Amino acid sequence: MFITFEGPEGSGKSTQIHLLAQFLRDQGQTVIITREPGGTAIGDEIRACLHNVAHTNMTSATELLLYSASRAQLVADIIRPALAAGQFVLSDRFFDSTFAYQGYGRGLDLDLLKQITYFATNGLQPDLTFLLDLPVATGLQRRQQNGDEMNRLDRESITFHQKVRAGYHELAAQHPRWCLINADQSVAAVQTALREQLTAVAPQF
Amino acid sequence: MFITFEGPEGSGKSTQIHLLAQFLRDQGQTVIITREPGGTAIGDEIRACLHNVAHTNMTSATELLLYSASRAQLVADIIRPALAAGQFVLSDRFFDSTFAYQGYGRGLDLDLLKQITYFATNGLQPDLTFLLDLPVATGLQRRQQNGDEMNRLDRESITFHQKVRAGYHELAAQHPRWCLINADQSVAAVQTALREQLTAVAPQF
Repeated sequence: MFITFEGPEGSGKSTQIHLLAQFLRDQGQTVIITREPGGTAIGDEIRACLHNVAHTNMTSATELLLYSASRAQLVADIIRPALAAGQFVLSDRFFDSTFAYQGYGRGLDLDLLKQITYFATNGLQPDLTFLLDLPVATGLQRRQQNGDEMNRLDRESITFHQKVRAGYHELAAQHPRWCLINADQSVAAVQTALREQLTAVAPQF
Repeated sequence: MFITFEGPEGSGKSTQIHLLAQFLRDQGQTVIITREPGGTAIGDEIRACLHNVAHTNMTSATELLLYSASRAQLVADIIRPALAAGQFVLSDRFFDSTFAYQGYGRGLDLDLLKQITYFATNGLQPDLTFLLDLPVATGLQRRQQNGDEMNRLDRESITFHQKVRAGYHELAAQHPRWCLINADQSVAAVQTALREQLTAVAPQF
């Protein structure tokens, strides 16, 4: 089963993924955790380039193509082999981030993004996508409180992040694989919501 | 005027570009020399990833997307501004390399490559493309004789490089912007041929 986690930085995706992985491992499942961009040696080089705050002049097209390149390698090297072996894959971001950030956020054509994404993933779709939803200001505030390093995307305007959030809501309304989770709660409450949703979709867990 | 140079490694593109640039500068032209992948800070990071011989498992899709990402940045940062300022741009490789290597060489769908290329370049086309044509064995031999570092693409099979060469011939037959130059001659003879062809296309030089 392939589960992706979407939402802004500061929404707690990484923490929630590790807790959910533990829950699944306790039931004897093999779980692979990965993230985008990155997750492979090639992808990590691409990640460094994408997050480099010195690259203020990176074009939207370059950005999209770099995310897609990282994704193509991750799907081929990590995700498809793990799924073929019957393992769980939990990914911190996947192609929906491209639609939200480069499509709704930057205004790139969504049909084109879909084509490039299909090419990069060879058609792979998540079975379940959790949207950890959070007001933009809350996400940024959490990042600052945690002393997190602000990457090139974090430094975008509030308007940009608001477009991204609205994009996520639109995406989530279009496909039944999405579960919208209110991330403006305690870690424990969010994790409970995730487990309930997962059990609703896959009652064996 | 935007002139691109295509052909295998070892065909002398770099040497010929510098000689042609000097010829144009002697006539008072401003000439920008660039290359793919690379040519920008972002592009040079991408180039390092693409040429890294440790990345033996890079997928064809990743490779294509990385070349396209580097190209998008180069077009936006360097090529379009230079052309807008009335300068000459001489580029060591451009999108035809993608068609030849990833399309004809790796077998990726040419229509898809055209779409991604159009997206990356925003439709920019060279005015003139020189194909420095050379038998595959001669190119490899020259590289070895020069003690050139063999990058990830150089290390591909002879069959791969033969498909690339056949692809170049097919591309050159499809569009009048191509000039096929026999690169299996002395440096001076190749340069003379280039200047003759350039003068034929643009009689003012």
